[in-house]
Amino acid sequence: MDNTVLILGGDGFCGWPTALHLSQNGYHVVIADNFSRRKIDVDLGLGSLTPILPLEERLAAWRETSGKSMDFILIDIAREYDRFLGLLRDVRPRAIVHFAEQRAAPYSMRSSACKRYTVDNNLNATHNVLCAIVESGLDVHLVHLGSMGVYGYTTTKMPIPEGYLPVRIEAPDGSCVEREIMYPPAPGSVYHMTKTQDALFFYFYNKNDGVRITDLHQGIVWGTATDETTMSEALVNRFDYDGDYGTVLNRFLVQSVVGHPLTVYGTGGQTRAFIHIRDTVKCIKLAIEHPPLPGERVKIFNQATETWSVRELAVLVSRLTGCEVRSYADPRKEDLENGLIVENSQFRALGLSPVTLSDGLMSEVRDVVAKYRHRCDLAKIPCTSLWTTGQTVDREGAPLSLAGSPAGATGISIL
Amino acid sequence: MDNTVLILGGDGFCGWPTALHLSQNGYHVVIADNFSRRKIDVDLGLGSLTPILPLEERLAAWRETSGKSMDFILIDIAREYDRFLGLLRDVRPRAIVHFAEQRAAPYSMRSSACKRYTVDNNLNATHNVLCAIVESGLDVHLVHLGSMGVYGYTTTKMPIPEGYLPVRIEAPDGSCVEREIMYPPAPGSVYHMTKTQDALFFYFYNKNDGVRITDLHQGIVWGTATDETTMSEALVNRFDYDGDYGTVLNRFLVQSVVGHPLTVYGTGGQTRAFIHIRDTVKCIKLAIEHPPLPGERVKIFNQATETWSVRELAVLVSRLTGCEVRSYADPRKEDLENGLIVENSQFRALGLSPVTLSDGLMSEVRDVVAKYRHRCDLAKIPCTSLWTTGQTVDREGAPLSLAGSPAGATGISIL
Repeated sequence: MDNTVLILGGDGFCGWPTALHLSQNGYHVVIADNFSRRKIDVDLGLGSLTPILPLEERLAAWRETSGKSMDFILIDIAREYDRFLGLLRDVRPRAIVHFAEQRAAPYSMRSSACKRYTVDNNLNATHNVLCAIVESGLDVHLVHLGSMGVYGYTTTKMPIPEGYLPVRIEAPDGSCVEREIMYPPAPGSVYHMTKTQDALFFYFYNKNDGVRITDLHQGIVWGTATDETTMSEALVNRFDYDGDYGTVLNRFLVQSVVGHPLTVYGTGGQTRAFIHIRDTVKCIKLAIEHPPLPGERVKIFNQATETWSVRELAVLVSRLTGCEVRSYADPRKEDLENGLIVENSQFRALGLSPVTLSDGLMSEVRDVVAKYRHRCDLAKIPCTSLWTTGQTVDREGAPLSLAGSPAGATGISIL
Repeated sequence: MDNTVLILGGDGFCGWPTALHLSQNGYHVVIADNFSRRKIDVDLGLGSLTPILPLEERLAAWRETSGKSMDFILIDIAREYDRFLGLLRDVRPRAIVHFAEQRAAPYSMRSSACKRYTVDNNLNATHNVLCAIVESGLDVHLVHLGSMGVYGYTTTKMPIPEGYLPVRIEAPDGSCVEREIMYPPAPGSVYHMTKTQDALFFYFYNKNDGVRITDLHQGIVWGTATDETTMSEALVNRFDYDGDYGTVLNRFLVQSVVGHPLTVYGTGGQTRAFIHIRDTVKCIKLAIEHPPLPGERVKIFNQATETWSVRELAVLVSRLTGCEVRSYADPRKEDLENGLIVENSQFRALGLSPVTLSDGLMSEVRDVVAKYRHRCDLAKIPCTSLWTTGQTVDREGAPLSLAGSPAGATGISIL
């Protein structure tokens, strides 16, 4: 059907609100999911702060609330190629939105088994999707969720361009060659590594088979609610606050409500790009509606609306809530201070009017947290995944001095 | 043991002569192999032109011939992580030489199943090796066989550097940033794609865990015999001449002996880098003996000794043998003409004195072919793997005119 969108991983944190948003906007949505995220919760003894319902009940609630229905298939894309090919041939989607990857950097570094699961699942899932598109003979637009973390070399001198970088190469005879190359990757975790490897799948299948692909390099998502998830409590989106799956701003907001000190790792000088979940779902709809032309190279968008350093965010939340900021040893192997400016003019040109950080939106998150705070397990807040075996992190959270961190090393860049 | 080398894929075309060469030179060699190459022969109804013995018999012959013994373990590196980790802890090798990947571009494009096998096997094998090195806590030097085919943008203006490329990036304020980046990849097959993805595994595990890694971007290997394989007929190396696994020069030499026209695909203007199998084994020994220093980035060598266009090789072999050259439609999606100069000063600095193309060495290969020509299946000579589904290749080999191809578009660069 011309209006069908297949959402791989449509039960997850970004997948579910995307499914609702597309359904609400007239698309016929088919969700494919293997519930891996819910199963990882089981393994880690975690749970979403918000009480998410089983998918079948979510879908029933959506039918009741909106009068629209979505389809669902339980399938493991990385393992069940033949069933996936059959699904594709049956559904004949206009676009596939691919969220079906293990998406937490700390989880990907948790153990040898978690590293291997992340690589095996993410790479085989992406490759199976591309193989099946080619084998089906269908012209399906693939929209993939990448990550801002694929980019190396960040600097405040130059905005990170959207995927491609013009460079000059000097030949030995003194002449210069100008090329536009894929932005040099420099992944900082096994999870981010798989995203840089995905980019090579996309390069090849686009060049060799003409598959139309959009890769969305997304910043850190914050917030939890969208216009659709708030239509009924049964539609509530998941909300992670633990050290592996919780993202930094959401974690700070939870910590501020439950009275845990704000967990700043290292100096907090790491500058990161952010996007609110309301903008995530809008960007994906825009990407679906603006596919690359036939024969066009892989279209790469930076799906981020603002950049902040972790320290700045902690100060903001602390000012809003009075909560204490505490510094912990950094479990990651990363630069403690970095500059970052992100180009995002493509989504702006398509009409995106970004939701940026505001006290109001932060309060909305805190209201959700306050409602479900009785479900919060404080023991799950610290990050316990270490990047290398030699590292030790004081699990008790012995505070480090923040005074020693270079002040003003990074700036805020509102795009 | 300080002198132990673990060879993954040590029963294969490059692996077996490497194992013999290292054993002959005083290393304790442990071979790990799952015999996947022999099993693919079974599936395709192929066989090595030379009558290779089962590995246990090869090892017995080596003990008898040289008085040295090698160990062997039957293991699938991509599937049996725990056994591999145990092996590593038992053997405690000084270096691992990693040939355990599906290594033919045409085979990797043969079908959806072959694409998926290549990706799943090659990526999980490489990642399992890296994970196991980290988990073992051992300081093991990993020597990996990459491919010259990972490099994009070839030109006669500039030699392909060894892995890293200095570039200038212009910032919006007009200032210039100079960086040394990994050479931009542009894989032309699923097989080559996995090699570019391997490079990202190496980047990450080197940076995050300090794993010492040498990646050898090898040209097309030709020849079959080394000083060690010729010590006894029972040690003979495998020799592939089919459209999937045979490499171009070896195929031409077989064709010239059995009276098949030389199969030039497209204009034959594709320039490629070459290396003789005698140099392959020497380069690997040199790489083992010159590991990166602790903390050093991934060491990348171009393991190639000369470049030729396919057309030039055909003319050479035709001149030597009187065999007819015939042109066929190109099953690959590639530039029909390209220039290529390859930097290989690192191996030369370590003392490599390259074996280059000579009538004598070509005759040596033809003698081997003549000896076993009764084992040749002519029907296996054409390449039947198509790069895209829309392509058609005239399997009967309707000759195309070579007259129309641009003459002199590529030059020979002997390095």
